[in-house]
Amino acid sequence: MKLDHIDTPAALIDIPRMQKNIARMQGHMNGLGVAFRPHVKTTKCIDVVRAQIAAGARGITVSTLKEAEAFFAAGVSDILYAVSIAPSKLPRALALRRQGCDLKLVVDNPTAAAAIAAFSDQYGESFEVWIEVDTDGHRSGITPEQDTLLEVGRILHENGVKVGGVMTHAGSSYELHTPQALAALAEQERAGCVRAAQRLRDAGIPCPAVSVGSTPTALAAGQLDGVTEVRAGVYVFFDLVMHNVGVCTLEDIALSVLATVIGHQADKGWAILDAGWMAMSRDRGTSKQAHDFGYGQPCLLNGTPLGGYVVSGANQEHGILSSSQESAHAGDITQRFPIGMKLRILPNHACATGAQFPEYHAVSANGDSVEWRRFQGW
Amino acid sequence: MKLDHIDTPAALIDIPRMQKNIARMQGHMNGLGVAFRPHVKTTKCIDVVRAQIAAGARGITVSTLKEAEAFFAAGVSDILYAVSIAPSKLPRALALRRQGCDLKLVVDNPTAAAAIAAFSDQYGESFEVWIEVDTDGHRSGITPEQDTLLEVGRILHENGVKVGGVMTHAGSSYELHTPQALAALAEQERAGCVRAAQRLRDAGIPCPAVSVGSTPTALAAGQLDGVTEVRAGVYVFFDLVMHNVGVCTLEDIALSVLATVIGHQADKGWAILDAGWMAMSRDRGTSKQAHDFGYGQPCLLNGTPLGGYVVSGANQEHGILSSSQESAHAGDITQRFPIGMKLRILPNHACATGAQFPEYHAVSANGDSVEWRRFQGW
Repeated sequence: MKLDHIDTPAALIDIPRMQKNIARMQGHMNGLGVAFRPHVKTTKCIDVVRAQIAAGARGITVSTLKEAEAFFAAGVSDILYAVSIAPSKLPRALALRRQGCDLKLVVDNPTAAAAIAAFSDQYGESFEVWIEVDTDGHRSGITPEQDTLLEVGRILHENGVKVGGVMTHAGSSYELHTPQALAALAEQERAGCVRAAQRLRDAGIPCPAVSVGSTPTALAAGQLDGVTEVRAGVYVFFDLVMHNVGVCTLEDIALSVLATVIGHQADKGWAILDAGWMAMSRDRGTSKQAHDFGYGQPCLLNGTPLGGYVVSGANQEHGILSSSQESAHAGDITQRFPIGMKLRILPNHACATGAQFPEYHAVSANGDSVEWRRFQGW
Repeated sequence: MKLDHIDTPAALIDIPRMQKNIARMQGHMNGLGVAFRPHVKTTKCIDVVRAQIAAGARGITVSTLKEAEAFFAAGVSDILYAVSIAPSKLPRALALRRQGCDLKLVVDNPTAAAAIAAFSDQYGESFEVWIEVDTDGHRSGITPEQDTLLEVGRILHENGVKVGGVMTHAGSSYELHTPQALAALAEQERAGCVRAAQRLRDAGIPCPAVSVGSTPTALAAGQLDGVTEVRAGVYVFFDLVMHNVGVCTLEDIALSVLATVIGHQADKGWAILDAGWMAMSRDRGTSKQAHDFGYGQPCLLNGTPLGGYVVSGANQEHGILSSSQESAHAGDITQRFPIGMKLRILPNHACATGAQFPEYHAVSANGDSVEWRRFQGW
């Protein structure tokens, strides 16, 4: 189907841009000599993940057991569930393991580690568990020097649970915007995770995998000595937040929302779109960055950004497109954006915007599109 | 299924609270002598809408054609599509009409009105169209005194398209927080819409329906002379934004997200939940209100709010629960919220949070729950 026949709002994937993003990340990882395990929480779409695996990815990262179940059903077996598991979720993890899924769990505390050990014993299942390391203080994990690290390692190892490795995510990289700061955080992430692995090994606990990553630190890393694999998710699409972090251009962003002009408030300089926050998501990730893109950056159908315009407001099914320049002539909006005109809106955050849609329309270089399903829920 | 057996995160509907909210709104409308047409964009769930109709609702309001298609398939015929239609969507509207759906369209501009007239003529279909009136300047619609109002009315009427009425939505009511201001806006909404209807009638254009509403103005309205029906959506669940507007208590909020404690950062006073922004949504509607609830208000499983605590931060699948009082002792978090503990989190905005889930778990007074499906997309 051609772009101008797709009903709006719709989530579009620009396939050439996506393939370029995949090749860029995989090429960088190949150059650094580490494996790459993409985080599929961004897309929840098997068609995208197949392209990542075809380019050289080894295994996937998931943020929910539903993702693990869906991608295992689609043929992916090497899966890291990268959220410290709630003990009540262990029966679902067990079911996946028993079907042959090479599911790796994550913990960052003794309680969950002990629960896995007891559950493994009760059901005679040999789980593999990675320990989450906190290298930037932004969320969960155990800092490399904490006693808890060895305590968790021992609870697992001494109870026959395989310690598969350590993993960390320097998510605070989203708050940076210079190559120097990103490179420094990438090194901090690497060094902290390698140090945690070394402490476990020194204590007699095997720790084969050392897994790090976020899109900005993965792209900024200059050397990854001691690291075995990198994880990243949003790089496959990029978005306006990543543009502001400085790791992509507007022309790299592969996800956009197709929208139609449905009205005007000429005296206010507004064109009304049929893409509101339900389509764009409520994510306003650029609001705290140097360039606030509102609810998104409007582009022509061919992908050319319309500088000087922004989606400045949103209701559930109404977006407000307006000039971002005070000098603009209000009357211009009506002529420049007539009713029925279709636009592509680049989103703040691809993970959040994609999640608003049950399917993507994946657009080839010649303008033809095919539907790629994505799933929702837990 | 009992609450503590539901996997997390999950969207819970407290059925007794929902029924109380439905009865309150319907009772108020009955008292004012107007029909009530609930906006189903909040729930996108036929089970909820059946309860609204059972209580006396007449017809429904939708924000997308997918809602119209889904609810018509489930047996609801009287449907107002309350967004000015993009001409490219007319074939879908036609298909619904031809299946027997009493679908009413909305326009707020001459271009769309002319497109409907031409399309009606081309396909020999008699559409019914309502004209959107702008009574508070917050979004779309034509102000009551604008010439465009009569222009749109004439384009429709003189080309044989039935003008079914006028409709307005004073969405700026979400920014208010006193009974006096809400009552004043409710009167402004009523008077503006009635005035627009009168202008059309004076020009010889029939205008049977006069439809107004938002949850806050509907509940604040003291008299609705000249109004034939009211629309409101979020009242069925309420949420923290509505609490701050002053139209419900925390104990009225019928939607919550069931979450599990999965970790701690004890020195920061954080408990980590498995409900992040993917579950709560990115909606931070209370951030500009007098009481900022972060990403949500934690409650015990029985619904009792935990004063002094808030979901202060969120990643995609991690929520950060912390004290909202500076004096709190950080170590307390680990003991008060042990790993595995389940909580219910009240959301900022029920429309946004509900949309993150493919199903609700509807919980009866005795604690049993059943699954109610909801749908996604356009």
